[in-house]
Amino acid sequence: MRIREIHVTPVAFRDPPLLNAAGVHEPWALRTVVEVVTDEGLTGLGETYGDLDHLVRVRAAAEALRGHDVYGDNAMYATVAGLVGADVVTDLHGLTGTSSRAKTVDRIFSPFEVACLDIRGKAAGRPVVDLLGGRVRDAVPYSAYLFYKWGGHPGAPEDGFGAALDPEGVVEQARLLIGRYGFGSIKLKGGVFPPEQEVEAIRALREAFPGHPLRLDPNAVWSVETSIRVGRELDGLLEYLEDPTEGIEGMARVAAEVPMPLATNMCVVTPEHLPPALRAGAIGVLLTDHHYWGGLVRSAHIATLCATFGIALSMHSNSHLGISLAAMTHLAAATPAVTHACDTHTPWQDGQDVVAPGALRFVDGAVPVPDGPGLGVELDRDALAIMNEQYEKCGVRSRDDTTYMRSVDPSFSARRPRW
Amino acid sequence: MRIREIHVTPVAFRDPPLLNAAGVHEPWALRTVVEVVTDEGLTGLGETYGDLDHLVRVRAAAEALRGHDVYGDNAMYATVAGLVGADVVTDLHGLTGTSSRAKTVDRIFSPFEVACLDIRGKAAGRPVVDLLGGRVRDAVPYSAYLFYKWGGHPGAPEDGFGAALDPEGVVEQARLLIGRYGFGSIKLKGGVFPPEQEVEAIRALREAFPGHPLRLDPNAVWSVETSIRVGRELDGLLEYLEDPTEGIEGMARVAAEVPMPLATNMCVVTPEHLPPALRAGAIGVLLTDHHYWGGLVRSAHIATLCATFGIALSMHSNSHLGISLAAMTHLAAATPAVTHACDTHTPWQDGQDVVAPGALRFVDGAVPVPDGPGLGVELDRDALAIMNEQYEKCGVRSRDDTTYMRSVDPSFSARRPRW
Repeated sequence: MRIREIHVTPVAFRDPPLLNAAGVHEPWALRTVVEVVTDEGLTGLGETYGDLDHLVRVRAAAEALRGHDVYGDNAMYATVAGLVGADVVTDLHGLTGTSSRAKTVDRIFSPFEVACLDIRGKAAGRPVVDLLGGRVRDAVPYSAYLFYKWGGHPGAPEDGFGAALDPEGVVEQARLLIGRYGFGSIKLKGGVFPPEQEVEAIRALREAFPGHPLRLDPNAVWSVETSIRVGRELDGLLEYLEDPTEGIEGMARVAAEVPMPLATNMCVVTPEHLPPALRAGAIGVLLTDHHYWGGLVRSAHIATLCATFGIALSMHSNSHLGISLAAMTHLAAATPAVTHACDTHTPWQDGQDVVAPGALRFVDGAVPVPDGPGLGVELDRDALAIMNEQYEKCGVRSRDDTTYMRSVDPSFSARRPRW
Repeated sequence: MRIREIHVTPVAFRDPPLLNAAGVHEPWALRTVVEVVTDEGLTGLGETYGDLDHLVRVRAAAEALRGHDVYGDNAMYATVAGLVGADVVTDLHGLTGTSSRAKTVDRIFSPFEVACLDIRGKAAGRPVVDLLGGRVRDAVPYSAYLFYKWGGHPGAPEDGFGAALDPEGVVEQARLLIGRYGFGSIKLKGGVFPPEQEVEAIRALREAFPGHPLRLDPNAVWSVETSIRVGRELDGLLEYLEDPTEGIEGMARVAAEVPMPLATNMCVVTPEHLPPALRAGAIGVLLTDHHYWGGLVRSAHIATLCATFGIALSMHSNSHLGISLAAMTHLAAATPAVTHACDTHTPWQDGQDVVAPGALRFVDGAVPVPDGPGLGVELDRDALAIMNEQYEKCGVRSRDDTTYMRSVDPSFSARRPRW
């Protein structure tokens, strides 16, 4: 079964002003929808980043993959690697670690691999989870992903989530998200305020939600010394501390001195980082992300590696739509080693999606694995057209939280470490 | 698609008197053929060890797996693990390393996983290689697996392979096997004679086959000191030295002092051995074996782990039939990290098989990936019946090379180290 054509569609959707170490989310979040069509008329969906540098390469890959066998992952990967050459695509926001050639190949390849799994699932009449080993859980738990945020974008009215700029606001946001989705774990995106303020927010969350595991992610804006001091202050409060500081060496120094495991989606972002990170004892939890770990099967392989070395697993998330949520859910449902609730930006989509309603839902903070064949989700073509039009009109072409923040606060610096 | 029934059939086939560190192959080699039948009437094949302790557990697993979904690897694995409990099945011959509960589960699970992949391939109309990522090679190279051997079993006439008890006999055997199969690599099973004699055989092979990569496998009967001394003598002669001595610690001591990489299928035989072996720098090549690494998909995961850590890959072999050869070929064809010719006992089958002729052949020492759906091989039911009858009559119930050797040479000892 061969690929007859591939449609690559950039989309934009409204995003609230979520604060992080790099700045603040712009009013529009970008994604790219990949639709693979076979000579037998089956279609499969993938979703990836929308940044222009990446989009250009995804389009070139789509051209090169025409005619490939949808079962030929190895051949497709080699084709993408050949296209990429020595090319390295970096992120402007810098929140997913250093870039490398291997990571560039993996993230260009990923949406095509997911789309081909969708097709293979449809051809077999089976959900993608069954192509990955079958269910170890019927529903995948996600965490309430809290952000410090402004009440609305500058010059725009207040959004429906309200402001969260202090412990009270953070707890209020947690109540809102948990009320709507039933999340059983809480992650706070930190790195926005001095660590003491973020520790206070964690203490407020612990008090308000005594049974919810908590995580804090300052995106590596703390020095090693600050990380150790703050990590000790947080003793007993966190299930893990995510990327307190930058780099494998720094993380290892912190890991040796703080009481909780360290998690990362920044210092280990491609297979070549694993041997040095494991040797150094830098991490206790890996937050995988199939968007930059080369798709679902490669992520499953990495999960086995982590399990073999006693590294726990969760999943990282960037702003995404329903195709990605479906893919993450199938993968996590088939992966015994995923031992922590996964991250998702779903609540911040605020109902916007390119997939038709009904297939994805949250029950007690978890997404039941879609039952249909393949990913179990279908494109809502009207929504896709609207979101593509938004992309054309919105003017954003690459995510750049820092420049946007500086347009509001010219003194802002995204340097690391900041504290 | 659910499992309606599973047929478990032990078989025996004639085996020449192949010498090794544990003794000598008995006149009959045992295997077990597993045939899984679904509610839709599709059938899938698996092949595993024939030793009675193992066979009893495979039969119990077959009973327990009835009704399972053929896509439900994780659920089937959990069922097998539940059956095994704290049970550990050891090998009498001791040539595949220490046993553990994990390894026991993996090797009971393996034939069912292979059979279910065979079924899933048939259902999709695709060869198993395509369920594992697709081809990176169209044919899988195997090595000429040489053995010291007697001319025939005691009391029986000379077999068609002749004796090989000195360098000339070993070279003669290599000529025979390479002439028939076209192998491009050579492995000598050592551990039979004092190391100096085996070094002489390697020198003779190097002279007779100057372009063929060579390996020597003394099955851990050398001390650390002997391994270092002999390893240095073999400088420039071997692509790798396989299991010169016992255990991760001993192998690491040897690896630090000899010029060639060390390979193993004895000190690393289950995932839990990998972290300590990698930390110690004990091995440069892992000889995987899907029969005890939990089937094809789990072996593929381990291949990624090895590639990530810079460990090269080949495959280990015990006496086997065509179902196993097909499974090994599909796996190796889909695994970029398999960088060395794989081992196979195929020549020693001497034409005996449970699979119908035609699907498997050697071209220039490599087996072209069978084209048909699934494993691409079919049972020859007449041959299966004959080989099952041979099993019933032959009297061998568990491989025991040592006792058989002692029946000929009462002074024989399989102790390690011997030299």
